[in-house]
Amino acid sequence: MDLDDLHVVIPAGGAGTRLWPLSRASRPKFLLDLTGSGRTLLQQTWDRLAVLVPAARIHVVTGPAHAVAVAEQLPHLQHLHVEPSPRDSMPAIGLATAVVAEQHPDAVVASFAADHVIADEQAFADSVRQAVSAARTGKVVTIGITPRSASTAFGYVQAGDLLQESEAPAARAVARFVEKPDEETARAYLRDASFSWNAGMFVTRADVLLAHLARLQPSLHDGLRRIAAAPPAEREAVLAETWPTLTRIAIDHAIAEPVSLEGGMAVVPGTFDWDDVGDFAALAGLREADTDPLWIDADGLAISTEGTPITVVGLSGVVVVHTADAVLVTSLEHAQDVKKAPAAWAGRGRDDLL
Amino acid sequence: MDLDDLHVVIPAGGAGTRLWPLSRASRPKFLLDLTGSGRTLLQQTWDRLAVLVPAARIHVVTGPAHAVAVAEQLPHLQHLHVEPSPRDSMPAIGLATAVVAEQHPDAVVASFAADHVIADEQAFADSVRQAVSAARTGKVVTIGITPRSASTAFGYVQAGDLLQESEAPAARAVARFVEKPDEETARAYLRDASFSWNAGMFVTRADVLLAHLARLQPSLHDGLRRIAAAPPAEREAVLAETWPTLTRIAIDHAIAEPVSLEGGMAVVPGTFDWDDVGDFAALAGLREADTDPLWIDADGLAISTEGTPITVVGLSGVVVVHTADAVLVTSLEHAQDVKKAPAAWAGRGRDDLL
Repeated sequence: MDLDDLHVVIPAGGAGTRLWPLSRASRPKFLLDLTGSGRTLLQQTWDRLAVLVPAARIHVVTGPAHAVAVAEQLPHLQHLHVEPSPRDSMPAIGLATAVVAEQHPDAVVASFAADHVIADEQAFADSVRQAVSAARTGKVVTIGITPRSASTAFGYVQAGDLLQESEAPAARAVARFVEKPDEETARAYLRDASFSWNAGMFVTRADVLLAHLARLQPSLHDGLRRIAAAPPAEREAVLAETWPTLTRIAIDHAIAEPVSLEGGMAVVPGTFDWDDVGDFAALAGLREADTDPLWIDADGLAISTEGTPITVVGLSGVVVVHTADAVLVTSLEHAQDVKKAPAAWAGRGRDDLL
Repeated sequence: MDLDDLHVVIPAGGAGTRLWPLSRASRPKFLLDLTGSGRTLLQQTWDRLAVLVPAARIHVVTGPAHAVAVAEQLPHLQHLHVEPSPRDSMPAIGLATAVVAEQHPDAVVASFAADHVIADEQAFADSVRQAVSAARTGKVVTIGITPRSASTAFGYVQAGDLLQESEAPAARAVARFVEKPDEETARAYLRDASFSWNAGMFVTRADVLLAHLARLQPSLHDGLRRIAAAPPAEREAVLAETWPTLTRIAIDHAIAEPVSLEGGMAVVPGTFDWDDVGDFAALAGLREADTDPLWIDADGLAISTEGTPITVVGLSGVVVVHTADAVLVTSLEHAQDVKKAPAAWAGRGRDDLL
């Protein structure tokens, strides 16, 4: 099965404040080689998709502060869309979709975040292929990750009946999306094979997405269409004029949830290891055991971006992060609370630490 | 009561490995302003003694690696003795004592470590005055610190009968010295007013100390006398030749313990706050609460010599130390284990971290 109609969108945004001080306003998570692989999360995302489609069909959407870094990290990138201000995922994905639809009305568009980690690229490619097949039938398709734990950090998607598509044998209708659950609910979801993690991966025909958008968010639709239809010489002016008027909304709320209630969403299982590297506890699970730090009756995660030797004595499950301008110490258990740190420094007038 | 016969010796040595990476082979504890007072421990020691005796009667003994730093920190210092190699406290104190005795045969010599912290300088001066009076009678006198806790980190001295000296009304004979006790023993000592902490402070007539030394460590005595008696032009050569042959021994073992068994030691109480700043737990108790670090549901001790902002999230009793070339994280509870760190780095070939 070929993927000649597939176009990929990589929205590259998000602050990643729970990975502060590694992740900074000026160098967010997707620009960092967090896993020590030698490639940044954005580059790993590119690598994973560039084996499926040529560069001519990959679009990255990012903010003006990161456009240069994105271009430097992705030398083969041909389509870089710079959003004048952050307006959440629907305008970002919608802009690239509208641009693709101008020239390729029958395109299938798939969007994948720039800062997620996927271990098994073959299994990922298989899921994408099934999702594309299901999308061709007119469904908006998500890839639901088979849960490995009763995580309360992710939203879930519940699968309904099989679509019975021969090219997408595992595709099912989406019964419903649910928000991040409490622990008890998460444990129940883990036991129930119909629930999977919502990884924010969406695959849809461009015309299907735009038709849903025209119906559900008409002003947003019209604005995106206007930008995409502008002649190259006027594109920037139309973008600058239109963008600030667009509704700030996530694709989950603009499309996935309402369309699922109408029976228009499908889910394809993703059995590969996936992580959104949401905090240092997640990162600890993704990195090789670091032998650079000196652990004396101690364990955890210790990173110095400066190569400064780190020593930990007598503490278990500790997180130590040293950068050129900050030192953070926390525990794997309190990893989610790290997001309080940049906010607290800002409160002390230290905007340089954001 | 005047102190015209008093001469002071400040042995400035010791690695302070439990305060690594603040305390380094090249910049040991006594050269550091650990308490944030604006004066290093050596300078604080000088200040405390210079109100009792003029600079002409203060001697500092240190190693060749620290002689320049000592001289820089103490611009009024007149007597700096550089020991060619570390041979423990008896040769260091004995050398200065022998030098003093050459010109002042009736001198009383008092030795105080360069890296201890004392809060109440008036109470300290009162103890010194009583110790000098007791020393004039021919006793070797120590100042025993009234314990504030059942510490297992210090040796103890047990007091016996009052000496009944009018100028030293609180002076008692030393019943015995005891090594660092276990916790149960330390608790018993805390309840027994006859026990005090051995802070390594010794006050004695120079001729008395040298006579004990001639009897108990004759070759050490003769070597020190030979160095002290050498004419200025030959002093360095005699020192270089003699020093390596001297017995390596602490004054506690060479003099205090054997002389106490003969009834020749006395103890004067020291009721002032005293600390040898042995580890980061001790240091945490001595410093003002630092408001520079950001504590989020956390507390402990956090120091950056570089002024780098430190953030701690969700950990209680944590110790974070950041220097130009190292990061250490431990807990107040494991403060004693920090000494393992420089040794372990040396084992990895990182002698630069010592």
